[in-house]
Amino acid sequence: MADEPATEILDGAYRALCRHGYANLTLQDIAAEADTSKASIYYHFDSKHRVFAALLDKFFDRFTDRINSVEGDTPREQLDTLLQELLATDTDPAQREFRLVLLELKAQAPYNSVLQEHLTEFDEFLSEQLQEILAAGINSGEFEETIDPVSVAELLTTTICGAQTCHVVTNHSTDRIYTTMSRYIERQLLDNDHTQIAL
Amino acid sequence: MADEPATEILDGAYRALCRHGYANLTLQDIAAEADTSKASIYYHFDSKHRVFAALLDKFFDRFTDRINSVEGDTPREQLDTLLQELLATDTDPAQREFRLVLLELKAQAPYNSVLQEHLTEFDEFLSEQLQEILAAGINSGEFEETIDPVSVAELLTTTICGAQTCHVVTNHSTDRIYTTMSRYIERQLLDNDHTQIAL
Repeated sequence: MADEPATEILDGAYRALCRHGYANLTLQDIAAEADTSKASIYYHFDSKHRVFAALLDKFFDRFTDRINSVEGDTPREQLDTLLQELLATDTDPAQREFRLVLLELKAQAPYNSVLQEHLTEFDEFLSEQLQEILAAGINSGEFEETIDPVSVAELLTTTICGAQTCHVVTNHSTDRIYTTMSRYIERQLLDNDHTQIAL
Repeated sequence: MADEPATEILDGAYRALCRHGYANLTLQDIAAEADTSKASIYYHFDSKHRVFAALLDKFFDRFTDRINSVEGDTPREQLDTLLQELLATDTDPAQREFRLVLLELKAQAPYNSVLQEHLTEFDEFLSEQLQEILAAGINSGEFEETIDPVSVAELLTTTICGAQTCHVVTNHSTDRIYTTMSRYIERQLLDNDHTQIAL
């Protein structure tokens, strides 16, 4: 038995999700993967839905840590590192498996308001981070004054969502998307007069 | 009994998919919705997988008809009509239901190569159509010579995929995405010298 039975249950739930898919998943599957009993799961989480809500909370914490740790000396560099990070065609099977699980949960979201609320948080958080970077870049003069951080952040978030979805569904690389988005940023967002002066 | 039992079965399969979701769907559910027997489904389609492959073929035909019927006197107008069509936040419940079904099938695609092949066709077809419009616009001088139709078409396809996915998952409107993409096209793709001369 682990020191943290709740953590063991969540790890087991994730493994069970990868193995069986969301729709077919039973509490027994989770118990088997977590090497515990259904009673113990009920004791810690009340229901299967609460297990998934807690699992999504854990994913969300990991996601915000990842986004917050993006480095760069200027807003432009931060934006570039963030896009590289999110659009990397990850050859890491664990990362692909994670995206797969997330897509499956997304497909269930319209039927499940708890999942929907949790999943919406990911996009909202990303969009807010992008808005902050864009606003900082406008302030510093690196990005054009005329751009609207809200709508550009929404467009970038949407394209990232599309790239990650397509990558999982069709197994296509997202590398070219990163290149095309970088060109978009260069031509559309950067204040090229400022850049020329800065250079 | 309808004149076309196979069509009746496909219509029933679609209704069953909307009602039960993909993962839990049994041949019996399809038979019940199509008002037929499991034996009749086997006679026409061999297996549940073949029913879904035929259903996706039907969706694909409808999708290509829709894309091919996009109107516009110039490539720019055609591109705009196409984006409007695909990014419209459809209040039509039937259209939303269709996107929901498609997302659920997408989530299953990584586990099912037949679904994956069929779903990849949608994005490939859209990307090819966009490439043709972009190439025609470059030829006519309406779009900038320097743009690469392949990567721009891929970016647009990805963003449309993202917008449609997000719309279903979070119920967010895609109207603003259309506006931001139109601005992108105006600033990034149009040959503004040519436009000025043309005006």
